[in-house]
Amino acid sequence: MLEQVVLDQKLGSEEYRNAIDALREKLSRLQRQARDGKIGVIVVFEGWDAAGKGTLINQVMQYLDPRGFNVHSIKAPTQEELFRPFLWRFWSRTPEKGRLAIFDRSWYGRVIGDRVDNLLGRKIWQRSYEEIRTFERQLTADGFVLAKFFLHISKGEQRKRFRKLESHPSLAWRVTREDWKRHEQYEEYMTAIEGALAETNTDFAPWTIVEAENRKFATVKVFQTLANAIQEGVDRASRHAAPHPQREAANPVTTSRSVLDEVDLSLDVPHTEYRRKLTRLQKRVRELEHEIYMKRIPVVIVFEGWDAAGKGGAIKRLTKLMDPRGYEVIPVAAPNDVEKAHHYLWRFWAKFPKAGHLTIFDRSWYGRVLVERVEGLCSPDEYKRAYREINEMEAQFAGFGAVIVKFWLQIDKEEQLQRFEARQNNPAKQWKINEEDWRNRDKWGLYERAVEDMLTKTSTAYAPWTIVESNSKRHGRIKTLQTVVEAIEKRLA
Amino acid sequence: MLEQVVLDQKLGSEEYRNAIDALREKLSRLQRQARDGKIGVIVVFEGWDAAGKGTLINQVMQYLDPRGFNVHSIKAPTQEELFRPFLWRFWSRTPEKGRLAIFDRSWYGRVIGDRVDNLLGRKIWQRSYEEIRTFERQLTADGFVLAKFFLHISKGEQRKRFRKLESHPSLAWRVTREDWKRHEQYEEYMTAIEGALAETNTDFAPWTIVEAENRKFATVKVFQTLANAIQEGVDRASRHAAPHPQREAANPVTTSRSVLDEVDLSLDVPHTEYRRKLTRLQKRVRELEHEIYMKRIPVVIVFEGWDAAGKGGAIKRLTKLMDPRGYEVIPVAAPNDVEKAHHYLWRFWAKFPKAGHLTIFDRSWYGRVLVERVEGLCSPDEYKRAYREINEMEAQFAGFGAVIVKFWLQIDKEEQLQRFEARQNNPAKQWKINEEDWRNRDKWGLYERAVEDMLTKTSTAYAPWTIVESNSKRHGRIKTLQTVVEAIEKRLA
Repeated sequence: MLEQVVLDQKLGSEEYRNAIDALREKLSRLQRQARDGKIGVIVVFEGWDAAGKGTLINQVMQYLDPRGFNVHSIKAPTQEELFRPFLWRFWSRTPEKGRLAIFDRSWYGRVIGDRVDNLLGRKIWQRSYEEIRTFERQLTADGFVLAKFFLHISKGEQRKRFRKLESHPSLAWRVTREDWKRHEQYEEYMTAIEGALAETNTDFAPWTIVEAENRKFATVKVFQTLANAIQEGVDRASRHAAPHPQREAANPVTTSRSVLDEVDLSLDVPHTEYRRKLTRLQKRVRELEHEIYMKRIPVVIVFEGWDAAGKGGAIKRLTKLMDPRGYEVIPVAAPNDVEKAHHYLWRFWAKFPKAGHLTIFDRSWYGRVLVERVEGLCSPDEYKRAYREINEMEAQFAGFGAVIVKFWLQIDKEEQLQRFEARQNNPAKQWKINEEDWRNRDKWGLYERAVEDMLTKTSTAYAPWTIVESNSKRHGRIKTLQTVVEAIEKRLA
Repeated sequence: MLEQVVLDQKLGSEEYRNAIDALREKLSRLQRQARDGKIGVIVVFEGWDAAGKGTLINQVMQYLDPRGFNVHSIKAPTQEELFRPFLWRFWSRTPEKGRLAIFDRSWYGRVIGDRVDNLLGRKIWQRSYEEIRTFERQLTADGFVLAKFFLHISKGEQRKRFRKLESHPSLAWRVTREDWKRHEQYEEYMTAIEGALAETNTDFAPWTIVEAENRKFATVKVFQTLANAIQEGVDRASRHAAPHPQREAANPVTTSRSVLDEVDLSLDVPHTEYRRKLTRLQKRVRELEHEIYMKRIPVVIVFEGWDAAGKGGAIKRLTKLMDPRGYEVIPVAAPNDVEKAHHYLWRFWAKFPKAGHLTIFDRSWYGRVLVERVEGLCSPDEYKRAYREINEMEAQFAGFGAVIVKFWLQIDKEEQLQRFEARQNNPAKQWKINEEDWRNRDKWGLYERAVEDMLTKTSTAYAPWTIVESNSKRHGRIKTLQTVVEAIEKRLA
């Protein structure tokens, strides 16, 4: 593919100045439109060493309002980053909607440099193609604009540029032994690059190959392409700016028996058995916490369930004897304004546990298909897309080696009423109940439907749901502990 | 000091249960009051190995609402952290107001473990006492509650506990060779610990020594002390919750000639000289960017100035030829809601450059004593305290080795009017001007007074202000470039 690129492109000075002046105005206007339209823009620069990425990026920066962008220079991952799935550090760098993020090198290092250097097995970097496509699709589906540039120069041109730098005393340091080594591997890199471009040249995030031997030509092409990409994003957003569908037509609540109806809420554990099992399981969890630490296995535990179903109590029992250095409980509430300005999965990616640690989510990303669906906080398109997006995210977690345990704590409507009333009548517990809880209760049917859909669509082999019969708190607590223990033991076996 | 602690403390089971039940209720209530009153609480646990920190922390966690706290287990700093002043990683972990942060070990490692291990010169860890006092004073002055616990056991007790752990097959891994080594160094640690406790036992952040040989006694003491500390914080906040003083009595603008009056705004640079100097300086900045990278020197550059004084233009000229991998421009706007929920210096600490990099602030922490003062966004007490706090922060940056350059871009009121009108009449530049700019202009006199105070009170030997005569943009740009070059060269000399 790259061999057929005609590198001998030229542009006269006059022609260049005219083009650049117009584009400069345009880019600056588009940046403001993107800001006002809350469209995030991600610009990726990949390319050969000495192809001129740094200069080009600095030029783009000069024409943008510095209040609206960040530049990320991507180097080898830190220890913290190596202990997370490989896209973790890129998710955390996605911009707020309305801002630009410019990447000087990017997630493509995984399938180019890492591949050539044999840092990963073939299966792993090949799986990364799919992970990258998923990442880019999820972002663009959420309105982000993604512009990806590959700056291409020939091997001969690269040699010429290295030599020229070396001949300047003050610039010679910029050519390192590694640069020459990579130069010698030009053909190997070519294979990896062509593979990467072909595998990830999607309609939602296409590549632009930039003939970079002539700087002026390259600059104009990059500016032009970037301007067009943002323009398209702005146009697309304004077409879709139809009034936000408040919520779906109120579907009649299904009357056929469903998975929640099958739950046996009469399950209970006698008190003495409870005490005995509880302590045994808590001790076992503590041992397992140590074992996963030694084996660097990350564990993700999700608690979802009806209000007052006992999530907090179950989490307390689970962590009772654990070492606080090994786990974290993340209570999930409505997103704050920084979180709202990002992709909805951004804040959950950020909380993925370090390898060897446990993270317990008290509510989670499933809010998208539960409360956000029922309350019309996202559009039907958005929550319908979310099932797949969530499965994809969990698949990446599992692919990285995570144990994923997800609980739905089920109680019936009567039990909830009793618990609400008990809270209301106990001064020490009144703070645990508010108006919203009562309002949610009125939408029991709608929530039930959302829960059924969630359980059906997001129970996977790598991240199955466990329904926990929770009318008996004792039973619920033992079952969650037991399930966590079994899931981790299975992985360690 | 520690030798006089009577370690032989006991508490009966009954007594314990009664005390703990009452405290549990109390803590849980206080946590809600702190949340509602937006009071941040910071709890520090230091102590001997095997003194029971982990168990105690887990117990505190059990009694708190998990939505309201985070636990930070402090280990050796990462590479990223080593490239920043030592309090950087602790600043970033200070909680939002209304939340608790529990530290399992803390910034005291600097003056205890690091000291015993001889990781730092004597001067450095001794300076850290002052840095720690400053850190804690700044936080408590802002309403944070700081509770610091040292869990004390004797050397004999520690040996006993290690041996007991080693005798359990499933717990033996918890005692490492390092633990025994530290045990042998008990007396050296004692010296360091006593020094740290004495030096940092302030009235705003006192230490509580916890006799930790009896777990029940220790638990009650910690809970009791913590509850009292939060209670005091809540009481103090409600006493101060008098109506927020909108702003100072409108002082008559000073008529005596002052530092801004002395600025010679007629300074200019002819066009050809400008071009020549500009390119030469830009090239020099690029070289210096490389040199500071090699020498791992961080550089902080602050741009403040009147609206339309040319901050953006000067920054563009400064960075024109720089390598984007070596610098970052941070445009500072009003804080978002996450930032508002922290100490006002929190977001600036977070942006301190990595050693070897430059950070350019387009507006900065000086907003506290400029716009926030003039607009009454903080109280007079708060902005008056800020001069010292800012000097202290910059002193820590400088102590870490940073070059600090601060610019005030000065223009006169007439020049500003011309620039505002030019912007208004140029369709491509209209976005650069809005109602607020005109409103700020009406407060020229108040701002002038704030600027004078700022320049006088925060120009230090380690972080001096440079006033840039900016009626001539050419002069302003050359002077900023020149000043940056000289400041860095001076450091490298």
